[in-house]
Amino acid sequence: MSSKAKQPNSYRGRYSEPLPTVNLVEDEEDFPEFEAFESDDATPRGFAPSGEPLSVKKVDMLQQKNMREHFTSEYDIDQLVVRRGQEFMMQVTFDRPLVDGDDFQVEFLIGVNPTASKGSMVLVTFGNRNGGPWKGRILEHQGEYVLLGITPTPKAIVGRFRTYVAVVDGAGMKRTKRDISTDVYVLFNAWCPEDAVYVDNNAERLEYVLNEHGVIYQGSLDSLVNRSWVYGQFQLGILDACILILDKSKMAIHDRGDVIKVVRKGSAMINAQDDSGVLVGNWSDDYSMGHSPTSWTGSINILMKYYNTGVSVSFAQCWVFAGVFNTFLRALGIPSRVITNFSSAHDNTGNLKTDLIFREDGTKDEAHTRDSIWNYHCWNEAWLTRQDLPAGFGGWQVVDSTPQETSDGHYRCGPASVKAIKEGVLCHQYDAGFVFAEVNSDIVFHKRDRYGTLTPFRLETSLVGLAIYTKALNGSGHVDITENYKYPEGSTEDNATMATAEQYGSQRNHSSIPDNPLTVSVYAEQVLLGQDVSLQVNFTNRENTARTIKAHLAGSIVFYTGVEASRFKELDFTVTVPANQTITEVIPISGQEYAPHLGSQVSMTFIVTGKSGEDSVTGIKLLNLQTPTLIVKLSGRSRVGNMMNVNIFFTNPFSFALVNVHLAMEGPGLISFRTRYYSIIEPGGSLNWMEVFRPRRAGNRTLVAVLDCNNLRQVMGVAYVKISG
Amino acid sequence: MSSKAKQPNSYRGRYSEPLPTVNLVEDEEDFPEFEAFESDDATPRGFAPSGEPLSVKKVDMLQQKNMREHFTSEYDIDQLVVRRGQEFMMQVTFDRPLVDGDDFQVEFLIGVNPTASKGSMVLVTFGNRNGGPWKGRILEHQGEYVLLGITPTPKAIVGRFRTYVAVVDGAGMKRTKRDISTDVYVLFNAWCPEDAVYVDNNAERLEYVLNEHGVIYQGSLDSLVNRSWVYGQFQLGILDACILILDKSKMAIHDRGDVIKVVRKGSAMINAQDDSGVLVGNWSDDYSMGHSPTSWTGSINILMKYYNTGVSVSFAQCWVFAGVFNTFLRALGIPSRVITNFSSAHDNTGNLKTDLIFREDGTKDEAHTRDSIWNYHCWNEAWLTRQDLPAGFGGWQVVDSTPQETSDGHYRCGPASVKAIKEGVLCHQYDAGFVFAEVNSDIVFHKRDRYGTLTPFRLETSLVGLAIYTKALNGSGHVDITENYKYPEGSTEDNATMATAEQYGSQRNHSSIPDNPLTVSVYAEQVLLGQDVSLQVNFTNRENTARTIKAHLAGSIVFYTGVEASRFKELDFTVTVPANQTITEVIPISGQEYAPHLGSQVSMTFIVTGKSGEDSVTGIKLLNLQTPTLIVKLSGRSRVGNMMNVNIFFTNPFSFALVNVHLAMEGPGLISFRTRYYSIIEPGGSLNWMEVFRPRRAGNRTLVAVLDCNNLRQVMGVAYVKISG
Repeated sequence: MSSKAKQPNSYRGRYSEPLPTVNLVEDEEDFPEFEAFESDDATPRGFAPSGEPLSVKKVDMLQQKNMREHFTSEYDIDQLVVRRGQEFMMQVTFDRPLVDGDDFQVEFLIGVNPTASKGSMVLVTFGNRNGGPWKGRILEHQGEYVLLGITPTPKAIVGRFRTYVAVVDGAGMKRTKRDISTDVYVLFNAWCPEDAVYVDNNAERLEYVLNEHGVIYQGSLDSLVNRSWVYGQFQLGILDACILILDKSKMAIHDRGDVIKVVRKGSAMINAQDDSGVLVGNWSDDYSMGHSPTSWTGSINILMKYYNTGVSVSFAQCWVFAGVFNTFLRALGIPSRVITNFSSAHDNTGNLKTDLIFREDGTKDEAHTRDSIWNYHCWNEAWLTRQDLPAGFGGWQVVDSTPQETSDGHYRCGPASVKAIKEGVLCHQYDAGFVFAEVNSDIVFHKRDRYGTLTPFRLETSLVGLAIYTKALNGSGHVDITENYKYPEGSTEDNATMATAEQYGSQRNHSSIPDNPLTVSVYAEQVLLGQDVSLQVNFTNRENTARTIKAHLAGSIVFYTGVEASRFKELDFTVTVPANQTITEVIPISGQEYAPHLGSQVSMTFIVTGKSGEDSVTGIKLLNLQTPTLIVKLSGRSRVGNMMNVNIFFTNPFSFALVNVHLAMEGPGLISFRTRYYSIIEPGGSLNWMEVFRPRRAGNRTLVAVLDCNNLRQVMGVAYVKISG
Repeated sequence: MSSKAKQPNSYRGRYSEPLPTVNLVEDEEDFPEFEAFESDDATPRGFAPSGEPLSVKKVDMLQQKNMREHFTSEYDIDQLVVRRGQEFMMQVTFDRPLVDGDDFQVEFLIGVNPTASKGSMVLVTFGNRNGGPWKGRILEHQGEYVLLGITPTPKAIVGRFRTYVAVVDGAGMKRTKRDISTDVYVLFNAWCPEDAVYVDNNAERLEYVLNEHGVIYQGSLDSLVNRSWVYGQFQLGILDACILILDKSKMAIHDRGDVIKVVRKGSAMINAQDDSGVLVGNWSDDYSMGHSPTSWTGSINILMKYYNTGVSVSFAQCWVFAGVFNTFLRALGIPSRVITNFSSAHDNTGNLKTDLIFREDGTKDEAHTRDSIWNYHCWNEAWLTRQDLPAGFGGWQVVDSTPQETSDGHYRCGPASVKAIKEGVLCHQYDAGFVFAEVNSDIVFHKRDRYGTLTPFRLETSLVGLAIYTKALNGSGHVDITENYKYPEGSTEDNATMATAEQYGSQRNHSSIPDNPLTVSVYAEQVLLGQDVSLQVNFTNRENTARTIKAHLAGSIVFYTGVEASRFKELDFTVTVPANQTITEVIPISGQEYAPHLGSQVSMTFIVTGKSGEDSVTGIKLLNLQTPTLIVKLSGRSRVGNMMNVNIFFTNPFSFALVNVHLAMEGPGLISFRTRYYSIIEPGGSLNWMEVFRPRRAGNRTLVAVLDCNNLRQVMGVAYVKISG
């Protein structure tokens, strides 16, 4: 790569130099080895005071000691990795003992055309002269050895700096040569109170910056699916891949100390739309041109593919975007987590209405319904102090890299303050109104008459944003963080929030909706995929006269986005409900009825609609089918360097064969990514996949395994182990 | 064009229908001519009450009468153009007199897959049944003639609607056929108090919505250049071109009633970066691949080129972006104006510092200076109520379509509330911090020592945003609107604003800067291009002892962006200034010295630096050279349809030949765009270009002419005339 980017000619009247946007330039030659001072009669020529010129023999970045202090030891990187706003040491060996009057400085450069006024060239001096914003001091001085302490500002640019030691030598500066081994990565610092990502709780820092493993919640509240995810932010190559993402986004080097800009840029770059970002979204059943979203065990493979090829990786759905974005954030030192919003309103232009349209006969009018409620949606939170907002809006911020077709036409979202969302203060940047709608939309049920006119007949204010989950600090369990986003439904504070949100332009439905004495609810126990379902439909009549209801049941396979994939059942029936009573109809749904229609989906909806005179009722049940799990067994002494075994067991419990079966496993610090392929697993057939490995790092470690095939997704397994050092 | 956009397969699990983003679909067939009601046993079959079926013979949109009432008569469009939130009329002729029980409705559709819940299909009923959000009433009814009054909501989608009249006929709906002549354009409405663009002053509405002509200010405060600009928003094809811009941006149809989203989208689309928008920026001297930015007479040609080819148009600089954006806004009914900020801080990432770097010897260090001050920068203001912000931030909003390399990496800016900028409240969307820096940055003068360290030696807090001009309501004079953006420099309110801005993260320089007893200022009278300049350099010494200053003068040709194009003079000299005195040195600069270096630029800077002991001084003078004007003379009776003459006179006043000379003229309502080419105009040579035309519209009209060639830009002329009807 040429180190000097060519200035586009049509902009030559705007910049004397091109705006530097590339960090990873390994062959950059910044200086001649000796740079003469410019002629300047006003300043007397200097000479080395001892008469003997000074030069540098060796520069030692003291990686091991520094990285322990900076909580960066886990990065599998030869160079020094430090967090800004915190002192690190380097040892310089000169060719002779230092004497009074010897003058040297350390220089850190990032990107092409680095410049002191933009913080991309930092000069560190040691008490003798004015230097740049990073502080330097001599910690120890013994003969030719000098131990230096250097503290980057808490606003330093984040990325990979090149290090030079420059000695003032008479008529100029004599510098060390470019040496990749003295490069230093500077990260955001959650341990530094002056950093915009400061977290004051150690357990939280350990989880949200340092944990390489996470759990992403899927499914629904009553059939929760835990998907283990390997973030792998310390793996060899991952930090460079994250810096490459910023390079490919053409983000100016001198903006990369601003964490708000970095997370916003990240939310745009993790998806491939617009900008050749990391991941291509695919919400279909056809993943033949890539890997299915359910087949990934974590972020490492995805980021390394992108790093090695520069081409967007196929395919992702929301949890994949969120998982990879989380790796990006943690790798750069930004505290972050993946959260799941159950029943997430989508694609409705940020208004507080999700409109579902029904026909006059009560059945759902798919052709005229444009909005959808996703069974769940995953996004990220990043912990930022938000100096750009009024006080009180720091803390967790929503960032979302799943491409949202209707979010201002740009495929990025956030950072939006979670506190601002809770209070309905939607005027603050960025995209708070959009996130507010995802967790707070009302569902408006409209009846569409024969003339095309819509009349709302039911309003549900509590079905969207049912709960918001994230992984607990300890272990792999979930914690419910709904109260971070919302006051209790119907509380005084909740009403105030909704009123505030409307002041800022979010539109709600205020149609008067007639009271309805009839209601219907639908219920079913969770079952294993393929098993029979017993559907319970409860009709309630709160009137003092009996009512006869003409009812209709529609059973559909749905994507997790709520969109219908296929309909497998239609049933008309009639129920008479006595005054002030509830009647329950039980409708059996056999495995044979739905299983052939599943494709790779695991969710069904049952919509019961009823009509009695002018009154319409609607009940909806989302049912997530349980999938079998992989059994993951570790054996052997769990000690660094010792040989261990992992066995993965699986039996096909279904009456149908599984074909084109891909298995994958990985465990950061334990075992690198491995795959295995079976062309077919017959009904009742079993597999036992064994691999051997030697743990490389001590501590609590996780191994994640996934099975994926065209007719069965969502089969996972995980094992935890503590490795001793 | 296929009317049903194909759903990308990889998103089939997300939308049942593709998100509609195309308005201009002329061949859309929305309905079968007869649409049977769906079978529904609960509703009895209807029959035409008179026994005789009703059908529609004719639909008249009453363009002339409606457009007078809606202030849209000037649009050169066959179809009806109305403003939302205001009633318009249409006359429907049936095939027999209406009788009680006859049932019909009018339907307005926009985009593909229109839907009632998103406002893209609007059903208007007339008292008989519930309809959609647009109100309908019968104004007159005589036999088979019905005069209808229809009021779009003040939040209606803006764009081109298709109109149908539907008659309820027994078992279904019988509709008129698609008829392009009954299409109706719905615009934003500055006359409607419920519209988000409401302006309560008639003179302002006439100027900011209806004036087709404007003046854009260039140059500098002491050598102001008035550039006439034809917005031409009513010209045939322009409104369609503006809608096409939204179509090409893939903006969802159902977002197009939200003026905030429309102006933000416009700011992204007027420039070609990212999104195949309208105009390609070029800040160089080489425009050989297109038209030079100085050669345009207005927006019409640019927008029609884009409309006819779909390809971005070459080339633009800031006033061209602003001129075309203004046409876009006014065409859609959004009140707007072009403003000019003199001494505009740029490319400095939104911080409140513009860093200029000088060498130890006092000369400017171009190689290490990254920031620039543009001599002027043009942007737009749009008048919006801003329902998305807290009260108090409505009114003028900055929107800027000139691509800003460092504005969050996206080539769009605003809307940012001017009031929020004045108060420093930079937390509100969108991009307020960036605009704030453009008008409020401090200039920090740094000295760069031999080791590379920067030390600030001078801070200027009042050199950026010297004044902000826009065209006055009446006539072509300017009005100074600086006080809309800023409190007086140094006032209590100004200090409060700066403190607020810093709270929201804008960084200033707070280095302590030593007092300096020496100052230097540079002054020159404005001259015609090519004439000699007499430079006055004033050195002041406020110390009680005389000081000898070693001074340096650098004379450069600069782009209007402040970037140096070439340097033509370097001069060292020494001055001794007695205690507490000012000494003036006069330095003559001959035309022969600078003219050969001008290229197509017309601006020079003279930088005088001086050094006396430890004290450095710097003075900068920007000099804009005057260019000759075109003389434009109209003759003949100024009456619609009468033949008139225009003569354009020009004499080359220079000692050099003008080569490849392009002339252009246009006058909306008077004369369509014309050009003429001269391969050479010798020194002292003249031209007289005559054209004949017949005025097409009455009222105050303007004719704009421009001369442009490689070695002379900025030659313009204008003529005003009142045409009687």
